[in-house]
Amino acid sequence: MAGGDEVKEVRNQQVLARDYISAIPVESDMYLNTSSTIKLRVPDDDDCQEAMLLKNLYLSCDPYMRGVKHSDDAASSTLQDRIVFFATDKPIVGYGVSKVVDSKHPEFKAGDLVWGITKWEEYTLIKNTQSFFKINHTDVPLSYYTGILGMPGMTAYAGFYEVCNPKKGEYVYVSSAFGAVGQLVGQFAKLMGCYVVGSAGSQEKVDILKNKFGFDEAFNYKEEADLAAALKRYFPQGIDIYFENVGGKMLDAVLLNMRLHGRIAVCGMISQYNFEQHQGVTNLMHLVYNRVRMEGFFVPDFYHLYPKFLDLVVPYIKQGNITYAEDIVEGLENGPASLVRLFSGRNAGKAVVVVARD
Amino acid sequence: MAGGDEVKEVRNQQVLARDYISAIPVESDMYLNTSSTIKLRVPDDDDCQEAMLLKNLYLSCDPYMRGVKHSDDAASSTLQDRIVFFATDKPIVGYGVSKVVDSKHPEFKAGDLVWGITKWEEYTLIKNTQSFFKINHTDVPLSYYTGILGMPGMTAYAGFYEVCNPKKGEYVYVSSAFGAVGQLVGQFAKLMGCYVVGSAGSQEKVDILKNKFGFDEAFNYKEEADLAAALKRYFPQGIDIYFENVGGKMLDAVLLNMRLHGRIAVCGMISQYNFEQHQGVTNLMHLVYNRVRMEGFFVPDFYHLYPKFLDLVVPYIKQGNITYAEDIVEGLENGPASLVRLFSGRNAGKAVVVVARD
Repeated sequence: MAGGDEVKEVRNQQVLARDYISAIPVESDMYLNTSSTIKLRVPDDDDCQEAMLLKNLYLSCDPYMRGVKHSDDAASSTLQDRIVFFATDKPIVGYGVSKVVDSKHPEFKAGDLVWGITKWEEYTLIKNTQSFFKINHTDVPLSYYTGILGMPGMTAYAGFYEVCNPKKGEYVYVSSAFGAVGQLVGQFAKLMGCYVVGSAGSQEKVDILKNKFGFDEAFNYKEEADLAAALKRYFPQGIDIYFENVGGKMLDAVLLNMRLHGRIAVCGMISQYNFEQHQGVTNLMHLVYNRVRMEGFFVPDFYHLYPKFLDLVVPYIKQGNITYAEDIVEGLENGPASLVRLFSGRNAGKAVVVVARD
Repeated sequence: MAGGDEVKEVRNQQVLARDYISAIPVESDMYLNTSSTIKLRVPDDDDCQEAMLLKNLYLSCDPYMRGVKHSDDAASSTLQDRIVFFATDKPIVGYGVSKVVDSKHPEFKAGDLVWGITKWEEYTLIKNTQSFFKINHTDVPLSYYTGILGMPGMTAYAGFYEVCNPKKGEYVYVSSAFGAVGQLVGQFAKLMGCYVVGSAGSQEKVDILKNKFGFDEAFNYKEEADLAAALKRYFPQGIDIYFENVGGKMLDAVLLNMRLHGRIAVCGMISQYNFEQHQGVTNLMHLVYNRVRMEGFFVPDFYHLYPKFLDLVVPYIKQGNITYAEDIVEGLENGPASLVRLFSGRNAGKAVVVVARD
């Protein structure tokens, strides 16, 4: 746009974080700001040389958003040095799908669809565009780029294929299997010819895992008094690959059931994020007994594989080889409730907040 | 020997295990049996077709001997399926250096020196010779084959070079650094050009680590109220490689100080063997924050590298590039005290029991 043009200024509703997050996140940890506005053009400021202005369409609710909180949380220094997801009186930060309204960046132009790390507001000025990918395949639902075709999909892909190095016929266990990542890991594992068991927190989810997502078995971890015994029942010969999403007692139970040369990809530990002090894991000597490799990974380290990932997954989606469930809520104002629901396990698939549909 | 010969029968003193091992091993968990005898020839029994009869010279005291106990210990099923180190009223099982007295095995003949898994007694009939290596380099002390040139040496070698994949200039931390394995890991790391810090349980050991073994720094973990802060002091930029020997609180402190893409080789967890329930490790999410790989290993998996290991280490020993300390006690009857001392941290180097000198 030419510098002299009149720039349109519009309403820019936002979801902000309060200065305190309680142990279990509640809706009141966030609040809606309806009074802010934004000019629909990238400013001419020095730090905006490669900036772009986005209209946010779909926002993603992800478990790590709660795990990585204030900058006074010394325990999570590394990740949070990069991105602060919850900062007092600032918009929540998270992945989203957006349309470029204005851009000074050579790779993005107005009208482009992108996904990356944006903010919980209607419009966002992005000064650092590093996290963004342009969306080229638009013959699948755009919201999929918050999940199966975005960060969670890449997380499942990197953790399963790259970190776990799976082989046909191996025994795979996925905790939090109904989550955006878990449901994909299970389906990737099935497509590779593995035996896959998932756990989730309700009978309804267990049924869907088995009947819709094609898991060989699934169980409700809340119904199991002895998790180690439950795993022994589903894996009498042990677990080759564990995709770790929950931590704590589940990890302890898994360690007792790993097979020789098993692999544990540590993606996250959702059961632990709301504890001030994480639950102690006591069975780590089993890493030695069974020569198990346990490895933490961080999906942006694998983003160079995104084109390869799309080549694999887009055909799977189009051909119906992969099933994908979304739990969509309409309206930015309903974002906090959707994020909170993740931690109660009441979401029915990948949690997505619709800000606008185009 | 021809079948008709008169076979010499000799005294065969043994150290046996009682039916109960207390939480902290004490000498009375073992007892000396002076009444048994043995015939100095491999019997003609069907299961002795490839057996050999050994005269035990040096026996090794190693931490895992306590860690892997009775067959009713469900928590250590895998290793103990292979070898039971403590079985009621049976000789203690452990690594040793022995001389072959008689053999039906084609690869071993009378007079050969060997090292492998034998028993705490004067003479041992070995029916399965799989664990044994013939000793060819006899221009170094024979007792070294219980340590630097035996299983502990191979443990240091496999854990450091193979599991940790070290690079010159990396920051290496070794707990239990005064132990048979730890002192070697530190020296291997120095020879590779790494910065090495070790911890031990007394000022005397700390001084020896720094002044004799050439560690860059060392500290007495018993003097540190805050292990994480101590590690931060010695590794302001973090730890690339942690050679894990102790577990529990130490591991928790290390997890807070790992560098990006760090590696933890889990060799054992001596601090935990005497707890009925291991101490909980709470900082495992740091595996994700820093993309750390934590891997248990078992040294027999690497025994095919033994010749390569000897090629590296024997010249180091002969040229004085590696320092090695032994804590030798004379007499089988002093074995229990020596083994027990390992767990109080009062051993002054690799603990060896001399049964006979030739």
